[in-house]
Amino acid sequence: MNELTILISCPDQVGLVTNITRVLAAHQLNIIAMREFVDEPNKAFFTRIACIGIFEETKKLKDKLLENLPNNAKVDLIAKKEKQIVVLVTKEYHCLAEILIKNQFKSLGANVKAVIGNYEELRDFTEQLGIPYFHVSHADKDKSAFEQEMKTIINQFDIDYIVLAKFMRILSTGFVKEYAGKIINIHHSFLPAFIGANPYRKAFERGVKIIGATAHFVTDNLDEGPIITQHTTHVDHNFGVKEMVRAGKENEKKVLLEALELIFENRVFVSGNKTIVFK
Amino acid sequence: MNELTILISCPDQVGLVTNITRVLAAHQLNIIAMREFVDEPNKAFFTRIACIGIFEETKKLKDKLLENLPNNAKVDLIAKKEKQIVVLVTKEYHCLAEILIKNQFKSLGANVKAVIGNYEELRDFTEQLGIPYFHVSHADKDKSAFEQEMKTIINQFDIDYIVLAKFMRILSTGFVKEYAGKIINIHHSFLPAFIGANPYRKAFERGVKIIGATAHFVTDNLDEGPIITQHTTHVDHNFGVKEMVRAGKENEKKVLLEALELIFENRVFVSGNKTIVFK
Amino acid sequence: MNELTILISCPDQVGLVTNITRVLAAHQLNIIAMREFVDEPNKAFFTRIACIGIFEETKKLKDKLLENLPNNAKVDLIAKKEKQIVVLVTKEYHCLAEILIKNQFKSLGANVKAVIGNYEELRDFTEQLGIPYFHVSHADKDKSAFEQEMKTIINQFDIDYIVLAKFMRILSTGFVKEYAGKIINIHHSFLPAFIGANPYRKAFERGVKIIGATAHFVTDNLDEGPIITQHTTHVDHNFGVKEMVRAGKENEKKVLLEALELIFENRVFVSGNKTIVFK
Amino acid sequence: MNELTILISCPDQVGLVTNITRVLAAHQLNIIAMREFVDEPNKAFFTRIACIGIFEETKKLKDKLLENLPNNAKVDLIAKKEKQIVVLVTKEYHCLAEILIKNQFKSLGANVKAVIGNYEELRDFTEQLGIPYFHVSHADKDKSAFEQEMKTIINQFDIDYIVLAKFMRILSTGFVKEYAGKIINIHHSFLPAFIGANPYRKAFERGVKIIGATAHFVTDNLDEGPIITQHTTHVDHNFGVKEMVRAGKENEKKVLLEALELIFENRVFVSGNKTIVFK
Repeated sequence: MNELTILISCPDQVGLVTNITRVLAAHQLNIIAMREFVDEPNKAFFTRIACIGIFEETKKLKDKLLENLPNNAKVDLIAKKEKQIVVLVTKEYHCLAEILIKNQFKSLGANVKAVIGNYEELRDFTEQLGIPYFHVSHADKDKSAFEQEMKTIINQFDIDYIVLAKFMRILSTGFVKEYAGKIINIHHSFLPAFIGANPYRKAFERGVKIIGATAHFVTDNLDEGPIITQHTTHVDHNFGVKEMVRAGKENEKKVLLEALELIFENRVFVSGNKTIVFK
Repeated sequence: MNELTILISCPDQVGLVTNITRVLAAHQLNIIAMREFVDEPNKAFFTRIACIGIFEETKKLKDKLLENLPNNAKVDLIAKKEKQIVVLVTKEYHCLAEILIKNQFKSLGANVKAVIGNYEELRDFTEQLGIPYFHVSHADKDKSAFEQEMKTIINQFDIDYIVLAKFMRILSTGFVKEYAGKIINIHHSFLPAFIGANPYRKAFERGVKIIGATAHFVTDNLDEGPIITQHTTHVDHNFGVKEMVRAGKENEKKVLLEALELIFENRVFVSGNKTIVFK
Repeated sequence: MNELTILISCPDQVGLVTNITRVLAAHQLNIIAMREFVDEPNKAFFTRIACIGIFEETKKLKDKLLENLPNNAKVDLIAKKEKQIVVLVTKEYHCLAEILIKNQFKSLGANVKAVIGNYEELRDFTEQLGIPYFHVSHADKDKSAFEQEMKTIINQFDIDYIVLAKFMRILSTGFVKEYAGKIINIHHSFLPAFIGANPYRKAFERGVKIIGATAHFVTDNLDEGPIITQHTTHVDHNFGVKEMVRAGKENEKKVLLEALELIFENRVFVSGNKTIVFK
Repeated sequence: MNELTILISCPDQVGLVTNITRVLAAHQLNIIAMREFVDEPNKAFFTRIACIGIFEETKKLKDKLLENLPNNAKVDLIAKKEKQIVVLVTKEYHCLAEILIKNQFKSLGANVKAVIGNYEELRDFTEQLGIPYFHVSHADKDKSAFEQEMKTIINQFDIDYIVLAKFMRILSTGFVKEYAGKIINIHHSFLPAFIGANPYRKAFERGVKIIGATAHFVTDNLDEGPIITQHTTHVDHNFGVKEMVRAGKENEKKVLLEALELIFENRVFVSGNKTIVFK
């Protein structure tokens, strides 16, 4: 008996749940958790089904499901396995450390294959935990050369996701397209407030009473990709920029790790510029 | 086209979702939201289905569903209608006011038929908002006489729920049994901490850094009924008992109203001493 | 023995606390709570001191304090008394109701003298609770006539603050200047996100996972005044605009009432475009 | 110019702040932050003052302060320096990892001198990060021998605090007394709910909707010491014991690290069975 997660998205119509569950029952699969959502304005249907059973012929199961669904349905059958990821960093350790610790103790739901940094600051720590560190400097070269170096490293591994753990360079449209739907970023503000650089300084200058962070998929519009998770934390007049940065880091790592957990458990659909998250 | 909410609980077995959704499809009902939960240790299945369609023969639909479900299944078909409630109070206004305001502006999801108080303090306010107020004193009589007076009033109305909005008398086992599953209480602590009287004083003396509140169904074990919602709020050394009470009241009304909203929208199942809440 | 709250702001220099507390001790005043803050970048000092004693000559006490402080110090001595307020509304009841309920049960820290609405929707409810309601329509007249009508009503009362409880008209620079530092607004987003109209629709379209609200003093830049309090609440893909509005309202009333409580207890300083809030 | 933190506690009386600040001014010390609290029921005064200046003769400054304070005043002058700590663990990594990561990147406010574990599970990880790990098994010996072994290790270092980072053995009264006021524990429930072992199982069985964690000083009454910080997190019917434990761990590390930060910044007073925390 194995566990299988089935993700389906398709145009909405009457009878979808019956059609899907009838196929599963015919294959002797027992549903242990099922979530569905109908995006009414866009007439789109999404479901995530966790089931257990014997899966000798997933290809046949997928075909059978597609037969019973509208024409342009998308069906993913995901046997329980860990994702493979590469992490991109600059100088800040807090998000990387959270990822590497969970990786080390097998509670990340993914394997970190490598860390790529555009500085050397995080090499020692990464290597202490036994993970390969690649330094790819952005200095003295144009962006396409910089990104090509990173791609050469990334493509050595059969990765599922690239995690930007406070990676402070803007990626080109070409890079983003090459890994479409696979790049996750943590932005240090509650988007859409404080888009762009130095959000904590802007927050300080505006005198806000909350600061936040946003984990999102990267698309070619900076800070405009589908949002996965967001949290905020309270600040007051005692917080200068430095204190906001410190409090913000705790929030950033929480938001990013929550997003990664959801993604690695196959709980996140992207639909247009939004996400559907089956918690 | 009408909306119908279907609540089903039964022993878990393979194929339940298929069986249920096939019946619905055969009746031309379109599912707009569906949630299910399997309580693995107790092998129990729960589902809440919101659907739209034409319901001329709900009796037949119910029979058809029961035919396709295990023997002791429980099926409720709930056409969208407001619940009828009676509110019991003592002297504190904050929960009552929140209920009466939402009642007045048709955003409670229920109609308040009457307020019963064991003091006169809240009469004027209740009557200003046009709701009948009945004073039933607990003084100078035994509990059974006190409760009989309340029952006579309550039973004038065809009520769905009795809401204890800071009603500070303990109800007898007999009373609770008569309205089994229909009485909702707000307890002024995060149960199971500070069971019983004066929780804020106990919280102050213990020096806790959070206080809380709990909305629960009333069973014959005081403060032991199935919990529906809980929230906490932060306090510090500046909070004396009075300040804790004040902060606590804001929390209490939030917790109670959230529970009522969930119940009135048919989102809460009781299973043993726990609740399943499909938010 | 009475209670007195002393608010002082002045340029920062060494010895301020000693100078101030020496004056208070000389007047036999016992400090029961004291908070201070130094705005380093602007070299400004702020303190709030609650003390008890006998205050026969507050004029002399104020002069003595000013003598011992830098030249352009600002000193307020506030004997414990309730503020007088007028509330401006449009059609939404939730913030107004929260204010009127607390007003009725003497837990607002202020007296509501009147409610002014640019529609008639909230008249009945306001009058049920015994508060005068004035209808001033914005239709069929220019903004200056509209505001003049409101001013004539407001100026009948000796008010401390004007509370915009979901008042959906933009006030002119002239109006704002006339009541400078006295107008408090609740904005239905976590500013600076979603400035302007329809924030919940914008939030829905952006696919955010949190929505928020902001209470702020009104200055002549729309949605740019000093922020007093902010909170956020979580939403997900199940929230359409309607559900966001509903969840948002609970947040809005919480944020506004928290701000009012802080202001009415003399805990808020305005410094440039920011607030210092001694909770 | 150096920074000095002054902690004073003494019986409350009129003029304390004047007396204290006059001494500081006479020594040319500039107050940059000051917090005070009067515990009215116990007539006790507490203050934390951060100041900058030149401190050649802290002994004289302390004597001068004591001269100007009631008889049994307690005065601590703390020049900015990192605390020295030892961490006790059993098998769970999450709190230890958070401490060691912050230690490594110099953001803990303390130096971890050693980790002592009653199992070997966390040796490799600790040593990877360059920190000495001592295995002291509790098996095959009585408690006093077990504790004596730990004391021998602890006493090699001049430690300020012992942090129990999910150390699952109960310490004897003798051990606790020897390090009175220096032992900090993280308890995996929102005390006083679920005192003792297996709080997540008890929480699951009770059907609560929130779980929590509590950081507290250890006294000889198990789980009864002064509480420093507490937070809660929401759970629902989908959470079995395993899921509660997982969510709880995130909360535990947050609560413990927040407490440690406050302690290491000299922001926590213990008064009887409570704490005063100047955030």
